[in-house]
Amino acid sequence: MNSVRMDNISWVEYKQRVDAGSVVFLPCGATEQHGPHLPLGTDALLASAISEDVARLVGGLVAPAISYGYKSQPRSGGGQHFCGTTSVDGATLSAMVRDAVREFHRHGVKRLVVVVGHFENQWFVTEGIDLAMRDIGERNTIEVMRVEHWEFCRRETLDVIFPDGFPGIALEHAAVIETSMMLHYYPQWVSLDRIPSHGPADFPPYDMFPARKEWVPASGVLSSAKESSSEKGRLLVRDIVDSMATAVCDEFDLAARPSPHDDESGALPFNGAASSA
Amino acid sequence: MNSVRMDNISWVEYKQRVDAGSVVFLPCGATEQHGPHLPLGTDALLASAISEDVARLVGGLVAPAISYGYKSQPRSGGGQHFCGTTSVDGATLSAMVRDAVREFHRHGVKRLVVVVGHFENQWFVTEGIDLAMRDIGERNTIEVMRVEHWEFCRRETLDVIFPDGFPGIALEHAAVIETSMMLHYYPQWVSLDRIPSHGPADFPPYDMFPARKEWVPASGVLSSAKESSSEKGRLLVRDIVDSMATAVCDEFDLAARPSPHDDESGALPFNGAASSA
Amino acid sequence: MNSVRMDNISWVEYKQRVDAGSVVFLPCGATEQHGPHLPLGTDALLASAISEDVARLVGGLVAPAISYGYKSQPRSGGGQHFCGTTSVDGATLSAMVRDAVREFHRHGVKRLVVVVGHFENQWFVTEGIDLAMRDIGERNTIEVMRVEHWEFCRRETLDVIFPDGFPGIALEHAAVIETSMMLHYYPQWVSLDRIPSHGPADFPPYDMFPARKEWVPASGVLSSAKESSSEKGRLLVRDIVDSMATAVCDEFDLAARPSPHDDESGALPFNGAASSA
Amino acid sequence: MNSVRMDNISWVEYKQRVDAGSVVFLPCGATEQHGPHLPLGTDALLASAISEDVARLVGGLVAPAISYGYKSQPRSGGGQHFCGTTSVDGATLSAMVRDAVREFHRHGVKRLVVVVGHFENQWFVTEGIDLAMRDIGERNTIEVMRVEHWEFCRRETLDVIFPDGFPGIALEHAAVIETSMMLHYYPQWVSLDRIPSHGPADFPPYDMFPARKEWVPASGVLSSAKESSSEKGRLLVRDIVDSMATAVCDEFDLAARPSPHDDESGALPFNGAASSA
Amino acid sequence: MNSVRMDNISWVEYKQRVDAGSVVFLPCGATEQHGPHLPLGTDALLASAISEDVARLVGGLVAPAISYGYKSQPRSGGGQHFCGTTSVDGATLSAMVRDAVREFHRHGVKRLVVVVGHFENQWFVTEGIDLAMRDIGERNTIEVMRVEHWEFCRRETLDVIFPDGFPGIALEHAAVIETSMMLHYYPQWVSLDRIPSHGPADFPPYDMFPARKEWVPASGVLSSAKESSSEKGRLLVRDIVDSMATAVCDEFDLAARPSPHDDESGALPFNGAASSA
Amino acid sequence: MNSVRMDNISWVEYKQRVDAGSVVFLPCGATEQHGPHLPLGTDALLASAISEDVARLVGGLVAPAISYGYKSQPRSGGGQHFCGTTSVDGATLSAMVRDAVREFHRHGVKRLVVVVGHFENQWFVTEGIDLAMRDIGERNTIEVMRVEHWEFCRRETLDVIFPDGFPGIALEHAAVIETSMMLHYYPQWVSLDRIPSHGPADFPPYDMFPARKEWVPASGVLSSAKESSSEKGRLLVRDIVDSMATAVCDEFDLAARPSPHDDESGALPFNGAASSA
Repeated sequence: MNSVRMDNISWVEYKQRVDAGSVVFLPCGATEQHGPHLPLGTDALLASAISEDVARLVGGLVAPAISYGYKSQPRSGGGQHFCGTTSVDGATLSAMVRDAVREFHRHGVKRLVVVVGHFENQWFVTEGIDLAMRDIGERNTIEVMRVEHWEFCRRETLDVIFPDGFPGIALEHAAVIETSMMLHYYPQWVSLDRIPSHGPADFPPYDMFPARKEWVPASGVLSSAKESSSEKGRLLVRDIVDSMATAVCDEFDLAARPSPHDDESGALPFNGAASSA
Repeated sequence: MNSVRMDNISWVEYKQRVDAGSVVFLPCGATEQHGPHLPLGTDALLASAISEDVARLVGGLVAPAISYGYKSQPRSGGGQHFCGTTSVDGATLSAMVRDAVREFHRHGVKRLVVVVGHFENQWFVTEGIDLAMRDIGERNTIEVMRVEHWEFCRRETLDVIFPDGFPGIALEHAAVIETSMMLHYYPQWVSLDRIPSHGPADFPPYDMFPARKEWVPASGVLSSAKESSSEKGRLLVRDIVDSMATAVCDEFDLAARPSPHDDESGALPFNGAASSA
Repeated sequence: MNSVRMDNISWVEYKQRVDAGSVVFLPCGATEQHGPHLPLGTDALLASAISEDVARLVGGLVAPAISYGYKSQPRSGGGQHFCGTTSVDGATLSAMVRDAVREFHRHGVKRLVVVVGHFENQWFVTEGIDLAMRDIGERNTIEVMRVEHWEFCRRETLDVIFPDGFPGIALEHAAVIETSMMLHYYPQWVSLDRIPSHGPADFPPYDMFPARKEWVPASGVLSSAKESSSEKGRLLVRDIVDSMATAVCDEFDLAARPSPHDDESGALPFNGAASSA
Repeated sequence: MNSVRMDNISWVEYKQRVDAGSVVFLPCGATEQHGPHLPLGTDALLASAISEDVARLVGGLVAPAISYGYKSQPRSGGGQHFCGTTSVDGATLSAMVRDAVREFHRHGVKRLVVVVGHFENQWFVTEGIDLAMRDIGERNTIEVMRVEHWEFCRRETLDVIFPDGFPGIALEHAAVIETSMMLHYYPQWVSLDRIPSHGPADFPPYDMFPARKEWVPASGVLSSAKESSSEKGRLLVRDIVDSMATAVCDEFDLAARPSPHDDESGALPFNGAASSA
Repeated sequence: MNSVRMDNISWVEYKQRVDAGSVVFLPCGATEQHGPHLPLGTDALLASAISEDVARLVGGLVAPAISYGYKSQPRSGGGQHFCGTTSVDGATLSAMVRDAVREFHRHGVKRLVVVVGHFENQWFVTEGIDLAMRDIGERNTIEVMRVEHWEFCRRETLDVIFPDGFPGIALEHAAVIETSMMLHYYPQWVSLDRIPSHGPADFPPYDMFPARKEWVPASGVLSSAKESSSEKGRLLVRDIVDSMATAVCDEFDLAARPSPHDDESGALPFNGAASSA
Repeated sequence: MNSVRMDNISWVEYKQRVDAGSVVFLPCGATEQHGPHLPLGTDALLASAISEDVARLVGGLVAPAISYGYKSQPRSGGGQHFCGTTSVDGATLSAMVRDAVREFHRHGVKRLVVVVGHFENQWFVTEGIDLAMRDIGERNTIEVMRVEHWEFCRRETLDVIFPDGFPGIALEHAAVIETSMMLHYYPQWVSLDRIPSHGPADFPPYDMFPARKEWVPASGVLSSAKESSSEKGRLLVRDIVDSMATAVCDEFDLAARPSPHDDESGALPFNGAASSA
């Protein structure tokens, strides 16, 4: 029993690792439509898998994902009119994060990484962390890093993956990046033959309420995922995992860390199959 | 792609099943100490696995588990002083359930089963469902069934498992029932050699705040799990899954259902290995 | 003016008693249907009367009852569809308790007993106490005991009262225990001739939302109160009051306490008529 | 069993009266210091007693009092630094009222009178009613009257009671009006010999936070109660009860009502001893 | 750049003044109908203008007004049925004030004056301040003064303005006082020719929900503003500003203060045109 | 009296305009450090001024600004450690917006534009609108447009203003865009001589809690404002106001609209001095 998953180990083992200074990762996903080719759990699944790969590199632990996220917006996730998208109010998400951070602090966790895997979660996760820090107050001995995993993808990698130019993260919902990473981690749940072929969505720079459903492709995909591949997923994941691990070590003053850069042969600790299955 | 797990299928497939009347199951677990021999995720893992087995029998779908539960109490879960136990406020849990139920209603789900896998969750889950029903109001087309899975275990089965008499569900935290069911579903995460040998905890019929930690065994186990076995787990699971499936079909007027009672030979649909791994 | 009721004494006298270390009791009742023979205030009335009897034994004080409780559930109180049942949301009850506990702490109260007189209140009262303890934080000098009064009834007494076997607390709503204790304390508000004669309710081990009203007897009584008597009430009350007083003294290290066991002749301090009138 | 107290009658009787159109009264009191001569429960006790007297006149019912009120302010109740004053947050009080109003509406109550017996409650009670009305929305069939009982005292009566001029309601905390009414209703809980003899408090027209405790007499009495008498209490109560009953009948179109004005001989329905014992 | 308005100066200048002990004023207004002759922003405009005049006298700073207030009540502001009245829930207003006070405390502000410019705001502003003080706890170094500006008008001035007797503040909504002060500060937004000529409203001493709209004059004016004048406004403002400045200096131990009483010649610092433009 | 400011007109005039279909604009600003050269009110001032210019073009009305925004973040506004930055919790901002939208709906407003003037407000404003729409429910007759004003600046204009390339909106806090627009609208409150000369801030793509203050320039300016000018402000404002007006007319089907494109001579309706002074 030497898992990076907190829910797979006993409290005794968890305590030993926390006492030894382990970094804890809290993935914040969503249950949200990701087109006809990706599963509803994509955001939680990717945030968890990436967290596990980083945790392996830095000797960390991954807490169970928060599987329900803030409401999908038309311009970034298609919007709340899709069947299957199962979202919570902002206050609910903030409360969940707040309570969790407060508990990790009680455990003695000194280093926490909150891994946002759903674009719309960002601000309510920020608020949850901020409120927990206020609760903890001057007794504070925990530091929290808040990351969106896609922010760790380097420009050079994006240039390789999008030879015709990166269209921007805004339209990457259920598109090449997410589909490729899912092909890397969870190929069994990707239906390549169901990728829609329509062009990218075109949104004005504002929102309307009630949502203008006609602005959103009926498939829920905001730009084409046709060019996705498992190999692109491998590249993206390697980039993200390595950069995130470096950032974690830098910010938390973790001295010893295996250097995945020395090992381009395929034996990278994080290039294996998905670990969470 | 024919999964019972909502997070593994696309919104298109989810919508087809919901439109066809599928029952949706929402497991409500916890991240809570379960002694040195069971993992922290026990409650969410069991609620999910049982939900999946029942879903297979009734043609249903299982939503992602709510992995964080209400605060552990000394007399039923050891209490909040254990490292690793990661709990949320009552209002947070109620809000999470409320939002989720409201969303399933928006999807067109007509039959929802909320599966409580953590004793302390019961009332806050009840409140969450109640508030969602109030929100939905007269437009209501959803029926919600709230269950604790352990309530479906028949007396006859308990008599077999506890030949010296069933000590009551109150002390069954991390004890024979949970350990046996974990051995059935997730043997890889059970450390039989770490089961503590002390006798059962002895609590007065009231609570003290701050908690009297000295009332709780240091291991977190409330009565011995020594007599646990995978075979007992199989019996318990079969009992629970079958009774729950029967109740679901009865309450929701589901006509056609495979009768597992006709098939005691081992070919029960739900006696295989855990499905969620 | 030597009352055990906080609302009948001045702040000056209250302060003297609190400064002297008096235990304060906070009854948490309900306004809930209790069949055609018991009044709507049964839960608050019993919790208050028992609190007063215990307070007399231990030199304590009884705060005004919280008269509105959490929503009645079909399996324990008949449910929310009854006219007269007047319930509050879980968050409201928790807030009321939280605020009250915080205030008693400000007063300098060191020993508080929260007396739950309504089954459905339990968890929201627990949450209210827990949140208050968190608010109070490290300045904490108050200890809180949370009790359900019926938990103090000894098995031997139940055997006397139910010669054919105790059917369990679950169905005791408006049944023999509550009716007998009301006959002991408040006979003027009990209508023996209106006790319904139907047999006990039979519930499945789960809840449905919206509630299945047809599961609940139209009278609101979950099992027959026909065998109730004032004498049984006296026995029950004596048992509960004595056990609760003992527990209070034990937990709060109250040395000197009158021993009611020495006095079986009927001169027990708590066997008189209801004190709250 | 023909009580005006809702908590003393069964749900069946309550339903009959509500179905017949009975007015329901909800007293909103407080647990607050009222000097060394009046009990902590004064506000809830008076609001309840007055409600019962009015209810008797108009064929109404009195719900259990909300016994905890909004935070005492220095200029109207002495402030929160007194031991014994036990107050709740504004949101808690509003929630309690909101939930109660919603429940009375569910019962079919068409006429509700919320009787404020504690100055500081006014706005949070208003908010609670307003939020309940919003919740009820277009289904609304309930009308709510919100009253402060002291507002029904006529100028002529005040002139009799204060021959040297009425100093204004602002300083009437634990002073002549409240003490006299308590002498009328609950003489057993008034300690006339403990009435302090100091002159009235003198406040500037603003508040300071933290409270300037030195502004408030140490006794908690804001102006002298020396001139109180049971007879003054009788006059005040008769005035208030009669005016309130008239207002209730007028607003709710209650045709037939006994006219207490015809009966000045002492046989007034409401001039008896306190009814709530 | 030597403004009394916080929103017109940089954080560097703000910090210098706060470090030097400046009093900060927080106006709490409303957006509420004020008859056909006064603008919707009257309450925020007057609270801001008065705050600025006082701030000039005491070397203070005025924070941006909270422009939305608690719900208008029929007897004091006409009620919520008027178009244009834009109100917030009590909890929203309390939260806004709570957060602001907490922030001023973080800035190092030691002296804060919360200036209520809308009758209905009073209690929710009080609650907001109280909750902030609780949040700040023992680290407290801020003192907060809560004022309603109209409370600073002396009796002598009212006698001059109302030669036939002051009808009481209750009916002064959009009447002589507010209209005169608006004529003093913002004559360009007053339409004297649209002042209605009807007599004062006549309310019973209680409220009805849903509001009885017929009790309120259709104009929204509760008593006539016909006798308003800019000169009366000047008198009122001089009175209020001077008294408030004196109170601020007294409570906050501000030694040196310009004495406007020495200067009746018209050169008063605060008798100029409106400052907020 | 023909103002575009709602707080400067009477409810009667407001009602006339709303009944005629006027668009209402709600500016959501902040009180936040903007370096040593810009005032703390910059975000509310700009959002209000732009709203007024657009309102003039489309015949609309501008509601009073919400002057306090969500907590400043290091990477977009410098963070919460600056003196003067006065922020509210996310729930507070959402509640304020929610209540306001609900009120505008009650007024009969059919077209509402919520103008975000503070980066960090975006998601909590979105949540506030969403919750209001849920409250309004099926009675919905209001459409809400949510905009960030800077999103309406065209690429061509940015190319003119940043001849060396636009560094991205992320670092534009208190930089060229805001400073230039402030020079256009409110030159009297800009201190050009206090613009700091340091280079742009360099942030990693994640956040740390507690904030790493050393990442943020001590001035609070995230990139240089040295190249700001009133003329650039004019260009930016024209671009934004015109594009926003076009979008408003398009989305709300406003037929007749003055075409500012026909008028490049300087007579644009919106190129005058700031209107709100």
